[in-house]
Formats: sequence, C-alpha cells, structure tokens
Amino acid sequence: MDGFMIEKYNKLNELRWDIIPEGSVTDPKGFRAAAVACGLKKSGKLDLALLVSDFDCTVAAVFTKNQVVAAPVTLDRETLRLNNKSIRVIAANAGSANACTGEPGMDAAKEMQRMAASLCGFQPDQALILSTGVIGVPLPLNKVKAGLRLAVEDLSERHGQAAAKAIMTTDTGPKHLTLRLDTDDGPITIGGMAKGSGMIHPDMATMLAVITTDAAVPADKMPPLLQTAVNHSFNRITVDGDTSTNDTVLFLANGASGINLESRDSRTLFTQGLTAVCTELAKMIIRDGEGASKFVEIRVTGLAHEEDAQTVARTIATSPLVKTALAGGDPNWGRILAAAGRAGVSFDQRSIDLWIRNGDNPGLQLVNRGIPTEYAENEAAAVFNKPEIHIHLGLGQGSADVTVWTCDLTHDYVTINADYRT
Amino acid sequence: MDGFMIEKYNKLNELRWDIIPEGSVTDPKGFRAAAVACGLKKSGKLDLALLVSDFDCTVAAVFTKNQVVAAPVTLDRETLRLNNKSIRVIAANAGSANACTGEPGMDAAKEMQRMAASLCGFQPDQALILSTGVIGVPLPLNKVKAGLRLAVEDLSERHGQAAAKAIMTTDTGPKHLTLRLDTDDGPITIGGMAKGSGMIHPDMATMLAVITTDAAVPADKMPPLLQTAVNHSFNRITVDGDTSTNDTVLFLANGASGINLESRDSRTLFTQGLTAVCTELAKMIIRDGEGASKFVEIRVTGLAHEEDAQTVARTIATSPLVKTALAGGDPNWGRILAAAGRAGVSFDQRSIDLWIRNGDNPGLQLVNRGIPTEYAENEAAAVFNKPEIHIHLGLGQGSADVTVWTCDLTHDYVTINADYRT
Repeated sequence: MDGFMIEKYNKLNELRWDIIPEGSVTDPKGFRAAAVACGLKKSGKLDLALLVSDFDCTVAAVFTKNQVVAAPVTLDRETLRLNNKSIRVIAANAGSANACTGEPGMDAAKEMQRMAASLCGFQPDQALILSTGVIGVPLPLNKVKAGLRLAVEDLSERHGQAAAKAIMTTDTGPKHLTLRLDTDDGPITIGGMAKGSGMIHPDMATMLAVITTDAAVPADKMPPLLQTAVNHSFNRITVDGDTSTNDTVLFLANGASGINLESRDSRTLFTQGLTAVCTELAKMIIRDGEGASKFVEIRVTGLAHEEDAQTVARTIATSPLVKTALAGGDPNWGRILAAAGRAGVSFDQRSIDLWIRNGDNPGLQLVNRGIPTEYAENEAAAVFNKPEIHIHLGLGQGSADVTVWTCDLTHDYVTINADYRT
Repeated sequence: MDGFMIEKYNKLNELRWDIIPEGSVTDPKGFRAAAVACGLKKSGKLDLALLVSDFDCTVAAVFTKNQVVAAPVTLDRETLRLNNKSIRVIAANAGSANACTGEPGMDAAKEMQRMAASLCGFQPDQALILSTGVIGVPLPLNKVKAGLRLAVEDLSERHGQAAAKAIMTTDTGPKHLTLRLDTDDGPITIGGMAKGSGMIHPDMATMLAVITTDAAVPADKMPPLLQTAVNHSFNRITVDGDTSTNDTVLFLANGASGINLESRDSRTLFTQGLTAVCTELAKMIIRDGEGASKFVEIRVTGLAHEEDAQTVARTIATSPLVKTALAGGDPNWGRILAAAGRAGVSFDQRSIDLWIRNGDNPGLQLVNRGIPTEYAENEAAAVFNKPEIHIHLGLGQGSADVTVWTCDLTHDYVTINADYRT
C-alpha cells in the first residue's frame, strides 16, 4: 500500500491539518457545484446537485452490499468498470431513489447519466449518478432533466454547501466539511459532503457521501485508500454492514493541486486525513440520527481479532434494549453484557471489565473481572443522562481495540418511522 | 430418528389431538406442582414454583447460546451431563436471575438445587433449577429456601396454572396449555408452561419453558426430539438465535401413562404434538411481546435452503424499520425488500414476489417479479391496520418454506424498556 494505510493513529498528524466545518466539496481546486430545486421534493426545496471537475478525476466508490440495489448503483458500478480515470461529473437527486423500478428505472438512470455528461460536454461514461428518496416509484425524468439544464448554468466554487443541502432527505441539516493538509510535498485539500439520518438502522435511509481532493492519486491506489477510510468511519456506524438499496460513497481526486504525494509520510498523512473527513461526516450522520437524543461511543478492547471486537461493538450498538436504556438514562449494564455475549464471539465472562464516562473524565468502572463493582447508582445514572456517552468494554484476552458510534432509540424514532409515508 | 422427526406437516394429525388452553404441566399423569410467594417480587405476587414427578423422568434441555450465562444454566448443564434419566424436581424462581454473580452465585444455585431435591426426598443431581429476573444482584437465598419449604407442603395436581404464574416477570399473563394425543399405542398427554415477554429482542428478557409428558421416551431420544420441536417453534421467534443469559427449555417424560410409542405413526404424532405445544407457547410469548400491538407472521419461500430462508425471515422480523412500519399501519414494502436484501443471502431481485393478508383471505400482491403491482394503497393500508398480519415473500429460486413470528415496535416498547429499573 506504499504508505496509503492507516497506521496506529498519530495525534501529531492533527497538528498538520485544519478542519474547516463550513467547508465543502468545492474547496479542493478545480471543483464546481450547483444545486437547484426541480420539483422532486414536495417542499419545493433544493433537490438536485451537480458537481463538475475541471480536470479528469481518478475515482473509487464503495456501494451498498444489499442484494436489492437501485438502478444508479448498478449503473455506477458498470461505469467505473469501464472508466475510473477520467470522471468529470456527479449528478445527484433527492426525492426519488429509483429503486425497485425494473428495466424502466435502469433506462431512466442511463438517461440521467447521459444528459448530465452531455450538458457539461463529456461522454456518458464520464458521469456518475446518485439517487435517494422514495423507493418503488419511477424517477420523474422530466423534472430531473429540467433540473440538470438549470444546474449546468449555475456551476460555481461557492455552491458546495448548497449541493450538500440538495441531497438531504430526512436530514435535519446539511453535512459537509473541508480538511486542509500541510504535507511534505505541499498543501492539499480534501472536501466532503454526506446525507443520511436513519443510520440508526440504515437499511432504508440511504447514506450518500462524496469526497473530493485536489491531490493527484493513481487510479489503482484509490479503491484501497477509500476502503481503509470507510472501514474506520462509515462502517463503524453501520449495523452488520447494513446498507440501503442506494448507499454510495464516491471519492474523486483531480490532481489540480499539482501535488503527487511522493513521500511516504505525505501518503500516511493523506490517508489519515481522508479517514478523518469520513469519520467527521459519519459522526454528523449519527448526531442527526432519527430521533436521537444521545451520541454514544462504544469501544471494545481485549479480544485477539479486530473483526471480533467490531462484531461485539456492533451488537451492543444495535441492541434495542441497550439503546432504549440509553434513551432512558438507565445504566442497565446487564443489557450491555448480554448483548456482547450473544454476538457470536467467544470470551470468558470472568474477564469482563466495563467502564462508562462522559468527555475526557476518567469515568466509572461498573464491572470488574465479571463481577459488579461497588459503584454508586446515582453516579452511573449521571453519566447515562448526559448527551454524549462513552462505553468501554474490556474482554481481557487480546490487543484488539475498536470504536463504533451510535445513538439511542427514542420515542421520536418510533414516531418518525411509524408515520405513514407522506 | 425412528419416526421422532417432524415430517411434512400433516393436517390430519390435528384430528387426533385436543388442545386444552387452560391445561398445564400437571395434566400429564404423575406430575404435581406448587407455587408460593416468598418475597422475591416486590409486588408480593407468586415468585417460586416447584414441579415434582412421581416417577423418574428422562430429560432434555435447550439452553441459551449466550457467552454470558447465569449460574442456574451452568449448573443444569452439569447436572444433565451426570443424570438425564432420573430427574424428579424442577425449582424455579422469578425476581432474581442469579446472572453475573460470580462464584457466590454458583454456590447459591447449588444450594437451591440441593435444598429443592432434599425437601422432596431426592439427591441433588435429581433436581434442576431455573431463575429469571434482575441481573447482577445476589440471589436472596434465604427467601428462596423459605419458599421451597412452603412449596413442598403444597404440591398438587391442581397447581400447574399457579406455577405458570409464579415464573412471570414482565409477562402480562401466564402461558400454559395441554395437548391430549390419541396415539395408536394409547392416549398420552403433553403439558407446557412458559414465560417471556421481551422476546421482541430476547437478549435480556429471559424465556423459560417447561414441557411435561407422561409418555415413556428413552433418554437418548429426548434431545433430538426437543431440538426439533424448539427449532420449529421457540427458535422461530428469536433474533439470530438471540438468547438471554438465562433462557432455558426443559422437557420431562416420566412414562406414567405406561405408553411407549411403539409404532412409527405414534412417534410422528408425538413429535408433531410436542412441536404444536412449543409453537403455541412461542406464539403466546409473541402476543405478549413488550409493547406489541400486532402479531405478525412472516413466511419466506423460494430459496434453495431452509437455513437461508430462515435468515431472510428473521432479518425482516427484526428490522426496526419494518417493525415501526407495522406499528404505524404503513404498508411500506420497500423496507421489507431492503431488509431481505441485507440478510446476507443471495437472490435475484427480479424474482421477488410479495403478498400481504389477514387471516385466511387470499391477500394482496404488492410486488410481482421485482416490480410493484397496481395495488390500491388503501387496500394495503387496510391489511396493515389489522391486529394480525401475514407477510409472504417469494424469492422464486427453490422449495424452502419457513415461517417466523414477530410483533411490531411501538412507543410502548420504548416506554417499557427506557423506564428506569424499579
């Protein structure tokens, strides 16, 4: 991987980057965006985004693992098999997912791709498309086409934030940021935007993310680089690799900075920076989780294999009983242990340690070597009543160390999802 | 298996049995029970049950697969390794799970076993124990002992229903029944009781079941017989084999009827009868699911392997988005397809058929060969608004046919589980 790997996280690297919360996908050089309202959302809000690069992009993508996939996912997969070196255009719409729409849906997706590319002066296989919204209804192609015609006239470096707004569905706010990296080879920029709100259980609430950079990255280095970053970020907030019919993460590098990341140190810094961008976007999604009232970090250590630790962490993070206890501010730790115990991973219950904390304080140990400590119930309740909770489960038999993020399961979650579709 | 197998379900067999809803574990000959209140439940309700057989029982058990197991589970496993032919006593308490209690908990479990056996005149390895309730607190052994002393004085064939009440925790009612079988070899009886209410996600709400019969069944035939029945019943309501720290199903055969099930037909009938008893108890648990407002049957057909069909059915049955849609009466079938698609089982989305119905009516087809039908939205909503809903997903590539049962995810579920422990 020539340094394009995430190594033991180096806090010093953070001294070499700046996170810009108001930044977006158009901050890296050579990217322009537009966002328009073309009537796909009944609210009349922005619902179509266009992103164009002034230079050919190398591209990597991570798609849903769902067996039921939307037409845009199938089309983008086919496109990237033909061309992962000269992508120029991303067209994204909210309001209609173009999923479970059969052959007509595939035809509509191709037409959306062809038109987006053509309006910008490129070939169809130089455009990728993203759709999110209602499933099982035909894509309103005429509206999309009208939107694309408007958008291409409005492309600008200033419209990155608007693009992030246009891809929102049940999101309560747009998700975007920029990271500026001071590498040994020179300054480069990574920008990102994402949408997703039902990530508590993301099987239907599509997650989309687009990451741009002006670094030059060879096409063959792009997929492992993105996969590494996704594994440590977006995949740390998912349920068993649960993904919707439309989930897509796209990563585009256009080389406009003229910087090639020659040194190993630069590549390592870049990998960590990309991971940081993905992690920040992932956390934004969790904080905007449907009905979420609490942000919860779950760390599992002390197993031999990272994969097992992740399985345990995810099982805890997705347990409705753990999540309702978090909603109720109830430090009912038996539910955490029981969830860990049913994860399908072998461990000795006599080795279990469990700590909880808020922020950076040392926290409270609830279980020591499998037996409850003499903790004060009111102190434990105080920790669980804060809006940000850290849970650390130690299993005492290895060096794995995995962190995942989730939120609580509230009445609002039920209200949002039991509401009849509008 | 010599006929001790469930074969293609034979409706005719139902003509040869009577289900008695008010029946219980003491209906088979030679079983007596007692139920007392010994102060384990703050409410002062019945909380300790004793079941005694007048003859040695062959016994099989199915226990939780959780890595974190309660002391009674560990002890019963050890006991049954030594003796599965002459069990006489079952002692069960609610109010304290004796889980995550370390060595002192194991000592308490042994003392409960020893005392229950001794009071009835038997050796310790002739008694099995069950506990359910709060996790992580010591078993109040003195209360249990006092309760056992009271119970042994009150054993009667009339106290089977009271025993079912004594093992309740969050259950809103007792769960018990009897099945009378008219076999070629003569009449035999199977009785059962169960507790469990949080089976929506059973990782903490313990499920306990005790099944008795007066048929004579060789000890080596008992485990596969019970496993077959459990696989088609209790395991059809669980989440990924999710089980609490205490889950236990016990099956006791004391031979008091003098009937040996000589003929193959009798054995087949018996297996199906046992499965019917377990299925009825399992459905009672679902109907009493925490916060449940709807009983939902999910049938998956058209895969090559039963195991895959079960995985798909369970993934649908445990999807929070499907369950909240059911709660809201919203026939949002995209969520059903998306859940099926993320189950990790391969199928062709162009082969998907989906039907919904209530009761025995023919129902409504929503998806045909992967494409939405022209169904009327109000008709679909009408089906999803009834208290009992059947969902049938056909995947068009094999003969597997699996049914699971679940309930919806309601505000009441969140209220019950987000409430601080009392």
